[in-house]
Amino acid sequence: MSFHRLIEKIKETKNPTVVGLDPLFSYLPAFLREQYMKNTDSPLESAAAAVLEFNKTLIDALCDIVPAVKPQCAYYEYYGWAGMKTLEETISYAQKKGMFVIIDGKRNDIGSTMEAYAAAHLGESDLLGTTAEAFHGDALTVNGYLGSDGITPLLSYCDQNDKGIFVLVKTSNPSSGELQDKQIDGKPVYQLMGELCEQWGAKTKGEPYSAVGAVVGATYPEELSKLRKALPHTFFLVPGYGAQGGGAKDVAGAFDENGLGAIVNSSRGILCAYKKEGCDEKDFAAAARREALRMKDDIVSVINLK
Amino acid sequence: MSFHRLIEKIKETKNPTVVGLDPLFSYLPAFLREQYMKNTDSPLESAAAAVLEFNKTLIDALCDIVPAVKPQCAYYEYYGWAGMKTLEETISYAQKKGMFVIIDGKRNDIGSTMEAYAAAHLGESDLLGTTAEAFHGDALTVNGYLGSDGITPLLSYCDQNDKGIFVLVKTSNPSSGELQDKQIDGKPVYQLMGELCEQWGAKTKGEPYSAVGAVVGATYPEELSKLRKALPHTFFLVPGYGAQGGGAKDVAGAFDENGLGAIVNSSRGILCAYKKEGCDEKDFAAAARREALRMKDDIVSVINLK
Repeated sequence: MSFHRLIEKIKETKNPTVVGLDPLFSYLPAFLREQYMKNTDSPLESAAAAVLEFNKTLIDALCDIVPAVKPQCAYYEYYGWAGMKTLEETISYAQKKGMFVIIDGKRNDIGSTMEAYAAAHLGESDLLGTTAEAFHGDALTVNGYLGSDGITPLLSYCDQNDKGIFVLVKTSNPSSGELQDKQIDGKPVYQLMGELCEQWGAKTKGEPYSAVGAVVGATYPEELSKLRKALPHTFFLVPGYGAQGGGAKDVAGAFDENGLGAIVNSSRGILCAYKKEGCDEKDFAAAARREALRMKDDIVSVINLK
Repeated sequence: MSFHRLIEKIKETKNPTVVGLDPLFSYLPAFLREQYMKNTDSPLESAAAAVLEFNKTLIDALCDIVPAVKPQCAYYEYYGWAGMKTLEETISYAQKKGMFVIIDGKRNDIGSTMEAYAAAHLGESDLLGTTAEAFHGDALTVNGYLGSDGITPLLSYCDQNDKGIFVLVKTSNPSSGELQDKQIDGKPVYQLMGELCEQWGAKTKGEPYSAVGAVVGATYPEELSKLRKALPHTFFLVPGYGAQGGGAKDVAGAFDENGLGAIVNSSRGILCAYKKEGCDEKDFAAAARREALRMKDDIVSVINLK
């Protein structure tokens, strides 16, 4: 099905941004870390419990003004299986609060293995006689290096379960060009990947935006604008705003004439707003909310969202 | 540090193969599934416990004849956080039995996020005051679409913790050519990625094989032979033998003149050997051992391993 649920939330909150829940342990306020780690016998479990409280407090402070969260799997695997439990509980909590959840896993594989990732993150696991939901995200980021065999297994989940995927197209990091900018038949690799997104998306429902989105970094504003025009049915997830150097003007080109078609991520800028502000660390969630509102105003000022 | 620990195990067992622990629930014998799923209130946890017993029984039957196992993350995430607990316990058990463990996660991201994956899968998680190991694999598969920013954070873990990585170069699936075979400056994308592996590997210790390996599928034997010659310091992980159609002759080109330089994976062929044999399903592990020995003999017959 397309990203209509996400688009509805964006219209409702008038805010095309997503908060990246990337809980590096040093991002947590010291009081929270100390409270959980004091005299623990199971440091990974205790740390994962601290992360869950951090996330829930942030979600409470953000859920009425921000449409979506994007937990980054790496920062949950970091805490072992207990971290994955926190990931699942964070997703449940955010969804209960009405937020759209993008699992940032950049998963990739083929055939029945990609099918397993799709079931784990966007569907139900078939346990032969019963089914159960593992991580039940609303969307998943994926890597398309393996071609259609790695993407096709996801498409039926998108339509049947009303979910979406974001394929890496042009990433925000300095070395993204080592492969992605190389020319194939007169066009860069990222453009080829973008065109594949349009082809894959055409197999899903949704107008104008299909269920196949693309990750395009804020740090390459020229490429972003070109891709917006070239890929009219592909919804963009835009990392690189804030800490990585992208500003509102840099992301403006990601949006269509209605101020839709893209969602801009900020992680550290919001999670660590209390450090930048220098406020009492117990007010970390209020600081996150202030920064989320500032970011919203910054981005909405350069687009035409009604 | 290179793959010297893996190479030692290969020499010791005279067996350059790895068993892919890809526990689709339907691969488990019915008696095992029924035993755990009967009257369960927590289907994912019960299924994950059944998988752990399946894996341990297989490891017991294989650990003296096979040098390595390769658990595929998708089939653990499939069972939620409980599956990730089974993944960790499977890794611990295999290592205790002397096996080298390749975590097949095809992880990819940038900077501090890739750093978190590296710590989670190959190192220790820093909990500010204490450290703990999350998944502690011996090697990890990764995807290089994001360029050096996604690989460099892993290299220090390889040298400091004596671990290795395998970068996707030419994958075994039918559509791998959609991007990987496209020509850039007169050479295919997979060759460019292979050359990047040599460059990244040169930053790690190890002779002749660095700590940066490559995934090259058995289903493209011509490319495999060419890449072996072009990438003399890159150890190969070769999927696609057996169920995907590759035979011993197809993988022969992956090896060097000493019968080293590559390890060939089989998953379904070994895990489901009891189904193919038609033996009593309680003998699933013995059937797996018979098939592992058959595969070893098949591959060793076409290479020069002393």
